[in-house]
Amino acid sequence: MKVLVIGAAGMVGRILSEHLLHTAELGGKPVTQLTAFDVVPAELTSENGVALQIKAGDIADRDTVDGLIADKPDLIFHLAAIVSGEAEADFDKGYRINLDGTRHLFEAIRAQGSGYHPRVVYTSSVAVFGAPFEDKITDTFITAPMTSYGTQKMIGELLLNDYSRKGIFDGIGIRLPTITVRPGKPNKAASGFFSGIIREPLAGQEAILPVEDDVRHWFASPAAALGFLLHAATMDTAPLGARRCLNMPGLSLTIAEVLETLRKVAGDEVVARVKRVPDPTIRQIVAGWPRDFAPDRAISVGFTADTDFESIIRAHIRDSEDVKG
Amino acid sequence: MKVLVIGAAGMVGRILSEHLLHTAELGGKPVTQLTAFDVVPAELTSENGVALQIKAGDIADRDTVDGLIADKPDLIFHLAAIVSGEAEADFDKGYRINLDGTRHLFEAIRAQGSGYHPRVVYTSSVAVFGAPFEDKITDTFITAPMTSYGTQKMIGELLLNDYSRKGIFDGIGIRLPTITVRPGKPNKAASGFFSGIIREPLAGQEAILPVEDDVRHWFASPAAALGFLLHAATMDTAPLGARRCLNMPGLSLTIAEVLETLRKVAGDEVVARVKRVPDPTIRQIVAGWPRDFAPDRAISVGFTADTDFESIIRAHIRDSEDVKG
Ligand SMILES: NC(=O)c1ccc[n+]([C@@H]2O[C@H](COP(=O)([O-])OP(=O)(O)OC[C@H]3O[C@@H](n4cnc5c(N)ncnc54)[C@H](O)[C@@H]3O)[C@@H](O)[C@H]2O)c1
Ligand SMILES: NC(=O)c1ccc[n+]([C@@H]2O[C@H](COP(=O)([O-])OP(=O)(O)OC[C@H]3O[C@@H](n4cnc5c(N)ncnc54)[C@H](O)[C@@H]3O)[C@@H](O)[C@H]2O)c1
Repeated sequence: MKVLVIGAAGMVGRILSEHLLHTAELGGKPVTQLTAFDVVPAELTSENGVALQIKAGDIADRDTVDGLIADKPDLIFHLAAIVSGEAEADFDKGYRINLDGTRHLFEAIRAQGSGYHPRVVYTSSVAVFGAPFEDKITDTFITAPMTSYGTQKMIGELLLNDYSRKGIFDGIGIRLPTITVRPGKPNKAASGFFSGIIREPLAGQEAILPVEDDVRHWFASPAAALGFLLHAATMDTAPLGARRCLNMPGLSLTIAEVLETLRKVAGDEVVARVKRVPDPTIRQIVAGWPRDFAPDRAISVGFTADTDFESIIRAHIRDSEDVKG
Repeated sequence: MKVLVIGAAGMVGRILSEHLLHTAELGGKPVTQLTAFDVVPAELTSENGVALQIKAGDIADRDTVDGLIADKPDLIFHLAAIVSGEAEADFDKGYRINLDGTRHLFEAIRAQGSGYHPRVVYTSSVAVFGAPFEDKITDTFITAPMTSYGTQKMIGELLLNDYSRKGIFDGIGIRLPTITVRPGKPNKAASGFFSGIIREPLAGQEAILPVEDDVRHWFASPAAALGFLLHAATMDTAPLGARRCLNMPGLSLTIAEVLETLRKVAGDEVVARVKRVPDPTIRQIVAGWPRDFAPDRAISVGFTADTDFESIIRAHIRDSEDVKG
């Protein structure tokens, strides 16, 4: 099986690529080739005989995308995106990468003609929803985004459904909760602080909390995100019918609950490194995000989430020690 | 006030343009200029001193659209579209006109900079919804289109909301029911037969009914559509908040009820001209369309619909006689 990962140098892309290189199989089939594409070359090393191609380029350039698809990968993960904060600040860039880039990918697949029908896994976001919310968002809740990022992700979903319905590819969209604890450096996502208030204090650094303690949010761990991607890549998509984009399962916690869990795992001194500096812009973006879900469809087709937040923090501590050690 | 009508040679565009030329005012303000744009030159005549510009071109050409907007119209009606049947048959054309064309318009407005903030009235469709349906579709029902046309209209809505939220223009989207009785010749819309089974028999011709008599559908008259457009052009958009696209009010009837009303107005002989020729393609498209609505939001902000179907048929007969006479 030939696999293409678009956005392979990103947080999720790297975890996914490293996993595929390491296991060299997916759903019982050998992964023979992995093409890792991103604006910057992904730092990956081939393992277990997988032919690794590291390519750098811009999905906003149609020719570049045609070049990637010319090789007819059997499975494509489309993770490349400009995240929420940046898409809100740079209108042009958000549309160019999140909308035009996604369309280039879908059109490049279509240009290969009817003999080619890859599985496409698209990472969407709970930002496709906008206030006012249900207490727990169900699978038929209206998708009314309130940010440019959410708008762009939702347009990608609509295109994915239409291209799949037309038999151009076999698409599935997974609406990721906020991945926490995000390893490495912060990115420009407006949601960055949700990880920052855990990651930085654990590393002995101060972290800024720009919203109130009673803000509720929807979380999944990096390990859960990897599980979602692998399941989306291998599951039977027939039960999805025309609605191929799913709310992923996760955990709903308030900031207060997140900090309480951190206190339990790491103590008062660590939690004291969280500084409250209200930021009206971030607060407004986050107010437009959903807080809790009843992701029945995803669960019914086999997606599984984290069981508790304490395990998420403990796994992060373990993973950071692995990186250091 | 300078008004631009895009799609002015179409059925709705012509009714709207003729009305504006005739009344020469809108919401108490004089209409000083009307630019009528379409692929083909609209057949219109200036009345009451309105400066009429008839322009022909393609909204899929960005330069053409820039040219239209250079004049900074205060009010823009965006009615141009490739309709459902054609967008389903010609994938490229549907995306090029319904998606790229709409984006060109929105981007051309943005390119004028922050001093320019026109009202944009966008005609969307109930095809943004897809089965399974609620019995009566409410204002928060999920928008999950099942055709390329519905997908393209929905993407236009998402863009309209985002551009409006960003203060680029003051947009409002109206999801039109199927306009019946459509005057003139049939178009390529899959919904064309809903008008055909009234219009053709009344004109002494046979009409094809491609679906079953128990198919239920959602209707509004051409006069009601004109009313929606004028109200959308002049109403206060503030109460709409971030969700600027509304289900328009209408009438829900089965084909059997439509034919019974036709029988009441025009007699058995007229109804006998309807021939049942099931068409699986049209049946499948129509099965993916909604049948009934509870359009509370639209009603609460002042949109009004037809009161009964008999009046719709009688108005069509009157209008046809006006055209003949
Ligand atoms: N991390 C989360 O909490 C979260 C939540 C919801 C959705 N998502 C989505 O999941 C995906 C992966 O998230 P992530 O956290 O790994 O994001 P990330 O920002 O770490 O990675 C995205 C990658 O896309 C690449 N990219 C950006 N523009 C590109 C372009 N023009 N051409 C090629 N590559 C480009 C970036 O260089 C980056 O490496 C994204 O689509 C994101 O929107 C993430
Ligand atoms: N009539 C209905 O029942 C109905 C229902 C729901 C939505 N709508 C929408 O309302 C609008 C008006 O409907 P209508 O019935 O008058 O449609 P119509 O087909 O009669 O008119 C559409 C017009 O758009 C023009 N057009 C198409 N491509 C163009 C392009 N590239 N550049 C410039 N002009 C172009 C066509 O020439 C045509 O005159 C459309 O957007 C339609 O999708 C109509």
